Amino acid sequence: MTALAKLKHRFERIAIINEASSMLAWDSSVMMPPGGAAARGDQLAVLAGLSHQLLTDPATAEWLAAASAPAQEPADEWEAANLRLIRRAHARAIALPGELVEAQSRANSRCEKVWRQARQESDYARVKPYLAEVLKLVREAARLWAEQSGSTPYDALMDGFQPGIGAADVAPVFARYETFLRETLDEIEARQADGPAPVAPAGPFPADRQEALCRKLSERIGLDYTRARLDRSAHPFSGGTPTDTRITTRYDEADFTSAALGVIHETGHALYEQRLPSAWARQPVGEAAGMAAHESQSLIVEMQAGRSDAFLRFLAPELAATFGPDPAFEAGNLARLWRRVHRGFIRVEADEVTYPAHVILRFRLEQALIGGDLGLNDLPAAWNDGIKALLGIAPPDDARGCLQDIHWYDGLFGYFPSYTLGAMAAAQLMAAARREAPAIDEALGVGSMAPLQDWLTRKVHVFGSRYGFNDLLRHATGSALSADAFEAHLRARYLG
Amino acid sequence: MTALAKLKHRFERIAIINEASSMLAWDSSVMMPPGGAAARGDQLAVLAGLSHQLLTDPATAEWLAAASAPAQEPADEWEAANLRLIRRAHARAIALPGELVEAQSRANSRCEKVWRQARQESDYARVKPYLAEVLKLVREAARLWAEQSGSTPYDALMDGFQPGIGAADVAPVFARYETFLRETLDEIEARQADGPAPVAPAGPFPADRQEALCRKLSERIGLDYTRARLDRSAHPFSGGTPTDTRITTRYDEADFTSAALGVIHETGHALYEQRLPSAWARQPVGEAAGMAAHESQSLIVEMQAGRSDAFLRFLAPELAATFGPDPAFEAGNLARLWRRVHRGFIRVEADEVTYPAHVILRFRLEQALIGGDLGLNDLPAAWNDGIKALLGIAPPDDARGCLQDIHWYDGLFGYFPSYTLGAMAAAQLMAAARREAPAIDEALGVGSMAPLQDWLTRKVHVFGSRYGFNDLLRHATGSALSADAFEAHLRARYLG
Repeated sequence: MTALAKLKHRFERIAIINEASSMLAWDSSVMMPPGGAAARGDQLAVLAGLSHQLLTDPATAEWLAAASAPAQEPADEWEAANLRLIRRAHARAIALPGELVEAQSRANSRCEKVWRQARQESDYARVKPYLAEVLKLVREAARLWAEQSGSTPYDALMDGFQPGIGAADVAPVFARYETFLRETLDEIEARQADGPAPVAPAGPFPADRQEALCRKLSERIGLDYTRARLDRSAHPFSGGTPTDTRITTRYDEADFTSAALGVIHETGHALYEQRLPSAWARQPVGEAAGMAAHESQSLIVEMQAGRSDAFLRFLAPELAATFGPDPAFEAGNLARLWRRVHRGFIRVEADEVTYPAHVILRFRLEQALIGGDLGLNDLPAAWNDGIKALLGIAPPDDARGCLQDIHWYDGLFGYFPSYTLGAMAAAQLMAAARREAPAIDEALGVGSMAPLQDWLTRKVHVFGSRYGFNDLLRHATGSALSADAFEAHLRARYLG
Repeated sequence: MTALAKLKHRFERIAIINEASSMLAWDSSVMMPPGGAAARGDQLAVLAGLSHQLLTDPATAEWLAAASAPAQEPADEWEAANLRLIRRAHARAIALPGELVEAQSRANSRCEKVWRQARQESDYARVKPYLAEVLKLVREAARLWAEQSGSTPYDALMDGFQPGIGAADVAPVFARYETFLRETLDEIEARQADGPAPVAPAGPFPADRQEALCRKLSERIGLDYTRARLDRSAHPFSGGTPTDTRITTRYDEADFTSAALGVIHETGHALYEQRLPSAWARQPVGEAAGMAAHESQSLIVEMQAGRSDAFLRFLAPELAATFGPDPAFEAGNLARLWRRVHRGFIRVEADEVTYPAHVILRFRLEQALIGGDLGLNDLPAAWNDGIKALLGIAPPDDARGCLQDIHWYDGLFGYFPSYTLGAMAAAQLMAAARREAPAIDEALGVGSMAPLQDWLTRKVHVFGSRYGFNDLLRHATGSALSADAFEAHLRARYLG
C-alpha cells in the first residue's frame, strides 16, 4: 500500500469509529434510560480517545509527509482536496496536548451542568467561575491553533466550525446587516401592525397525528426513509450517518408549529448528509462543507422554501386533512403566523429578520472574550447593552440574556456566526436556484421540493468538502458570500 | 500502577468497547433502517477488531505474567477468580491467528445469508458447501483451543459458552433424560388426551395493549425501567449492558402468548444482568457465569415461576382486564394451553418436556461433526434418524430438520447444551429456593417474584463469574448439576 492509501485507510477507520459515536450519541438523546448515562459517557469517551489516538499516532504524520512529497502529485482535485483536509485535521489534532483536550472535556461538562441550574435560576454569578475555567482553556487551545495556522486565536476557533471563514469575512457582512436592520425593522413592524393579526389554530393536536404529518412532509421534501428515522427527543436535532440519518423533534399538543417546521428544518440537514458524495464516504473530502454550509441546507428548506407562499398553499389543506378543518389553516394566515417579526430576547425563538441581531451580538462578545478585551464580570452588562443597541430592548434578567444559550458554557466559541452565514447562503442559493430552475416555485405549490433539491444536490451536496465555503458559493451562485440575496429576500417577503 | 491494575484497566477498556458494540447490535435489530446495514457491519467489525487488538497486545501478556508471579498473591477470592478469567480470555484470544478469526467472520456471515434462503426453500444442498467452509474453520479453531487448554476440540468449543462444562458432564445427564422421556412421554400425552382440551382465547389482541401488559408484567417481576427498555424486533432477545438492559419481543395480534411469555423469559435474562455485582462491573468476574447460567435465569422466571399454578391464577384476571373477559382466561385453561406437551419438529416451538430431546440430538450430532465421525453429506439423514429415535417422529423436509436453527450456519457449535443445562439448573434452583424461602409461591399468587428474585440475587446474581457453573449450583443448592430436580418438576407438573 502507498502512504496515501494507508493514510486514507486510517481516516476511514477514524470515520467508522466516529460513526459509532454518532449513533450512540443519538441513542443517548432518544432511547437511553437514565440509568445508562454514566456508562454511555464512558463509551463515548473511550471511542473519542481511540479516534484521537489514531489521528495523532506518529504513523499518521509519516504517511502524511510521504504522501505530500513533491513527487506524489495528487491524481485529481478530489485527491488534492482530501489530502489538504487530512493535513488540516492532523495539524489541529496534534496542536493540542492530550492533557488540554481532557481538561477541556472535564471543564465543559462540569460547567454545562452548573449552567443548567444557573439558567433556571437566572444566577450568572453561580456559573461564572466555571465559565472562567472553560474560557481559560478555550483561549489556550485557540492560542495553540493560531500559532500552528498563523491566524488570530478567534479565527482559529471559527475555523473549527466553518473552515476557511474568519472574522474578517464576517464582520463587514454583519455590519451591513446591522444597517439594514436599522433601516427596515421599524417599517416591517409597522406594516405587520397595519395588516390583519394572525390567528392561532385551535388545538389540541394529537402527537401521533403531528408525527404522521411530519413524516409525510419530510418524505415529500425528499428524505429517504430506507436510510433514515424520525424520532422524539427533548431537543430536536439531526444526527446519524449518511446511510442512516436520524432526525428528531418534540410534539407540543397545543401547537404543532415547532414540530412541523422543526422537522422541515432537520430534513434539510438530513438531505445534505444523504446526498454527500458516496465515492468519498468516510474521507474528509466526503463530509459536509462545514457548519454554515450545513445550516444553509436546513434554512433553505425551512425558511426559503418551507415558509414560501407556494409551499404554504400546499400545506394549508394538508393541515386541515390532518387535524380537521380550521379557518386558521388558510395559507395567508399561516404566512402571517409563521413570518411574524418580533423583537424578542431569545435567539432560538427569533424570526428570520431579527435572528441575525442575536448572532451579531454573540459574534462581537465572543471575539472580545477570546481577545481578552472583555472580562466575565462585565459580560452581563455588555450583553444587555448590545441587545439594546441592536434591537432596542433590554433583557429583564440574565436567563433571557447571557445565560440563554448552551454554547459558551459547553466550550463552543466561534460557532454562532454559522447560523447567520447559513441563512445568508440559503438566500443566495435560493436566488441562484430560481434563476436556473424556474420550476422550483411551481413544484413547491404542490408540496414538492424535488427541483430545488435536485439543484442543491448538483451544486452543493455532491461536492462534499471539495470546496471551501466561499468557493462552494462562487461555484453554485457566481459570487462569494454577501448579504445581498438575504436582504433582497427579506425586502420581498416583508416589505414587498 | 501495578501490573494487575494495568491489566484491570485494560479489561475495563475492552468491556467498554464491547458495551458500545452491544448497544449498536441492539440498534441494528430494533431501530436501524435497512440502508444502515452495510455501515453498521463495518462499525461492529472495527470495534471487534479494536477490542481483540487490546486483548492480544503484547503488553497484556506482560502484565498478566507479572500479576501472576508467585509473589503476587491475589488480595481475595474475587481477585483470584478475576485473574483466572483474564488469563483464560487472553489464552483463548491468542490461541487463534487473526487470519482465522477473520476468515471465520467472513465464512459465517456468508453461510448465514445463504442459509436464510436455503431454509425457506428447504434446500440443504444449496447451503452445504458454505456450511462445509464454516465447519472446517470451526474445527481448526477447536483444535487450536484444545491444544492450548489440553481438552478435546468439542469441549474447547463448549467452554466458550459455558466455561468449565464439557461433554463428559453433559452426556450422562442427557442419557438419563432420554430414559426419563421414554418412560414418561406416552403417559403424559395420554393424561392430556384424557383431560379437557385447552381453549384458545379469542383475539384479536391489539399490539399496544399487549405491550402495556408485557411492560407491567416485567416490572412486576422486578425489571427496573430506569435501567431498561422494552422494544419490538423480529426475533426476541435480551441485550444491552447491566445499567441499560434492552429486551425485545414481537406482537402477534392473533395470539398474545409468545409476546407475554417471551417478555417474561427475557426479563429473567435482564434481571440477571441488572443484578450482577456492580463492584466488579467491566471485569470478567463481574459478568454472568456463562450461557447455561443465563438460560437458567430466564427459564426459572418463565417455566418454573411464570407457568406455575400460582402465577397463572394472578395472570388470569390481568388478561381479562387487558383484553376484556374471555372464559379462556381461566387459570386452569391457561395451564392446559401453556403446558401442552406435543412432539414437534421445531425446537423453538417445543414444550419443556420434549425440548431437551431437540438439544440432545444436536449435542450428539455436533460432537460427531466436530470429531469428524459424521460428514455433512450424512447430516440430514442422521438428523432425521435421531429425532425419530428420540421422539418417534420423522421430519417431512430439511426445513423442519437440520436446516431449522441458525446456530451451525453461523459457526456456533457447542452452544446447544446450554439450553437444557439451563432448564435443569432452573429446576434445581427453584427447588432449593422453595426450601429456603417458602413465601415464593404465595407471592407468585399475587404476581410478585420478589421473594424468588431476592433469593436468586443472593445465591446467583451477585456472584457474577466468581464460581464456575457447577460450583455456583453447589453453592446455591447443595449439589452439582443433575437431572433430578428437573425430572421431579416435570413429574409433579405433568404426572402429579
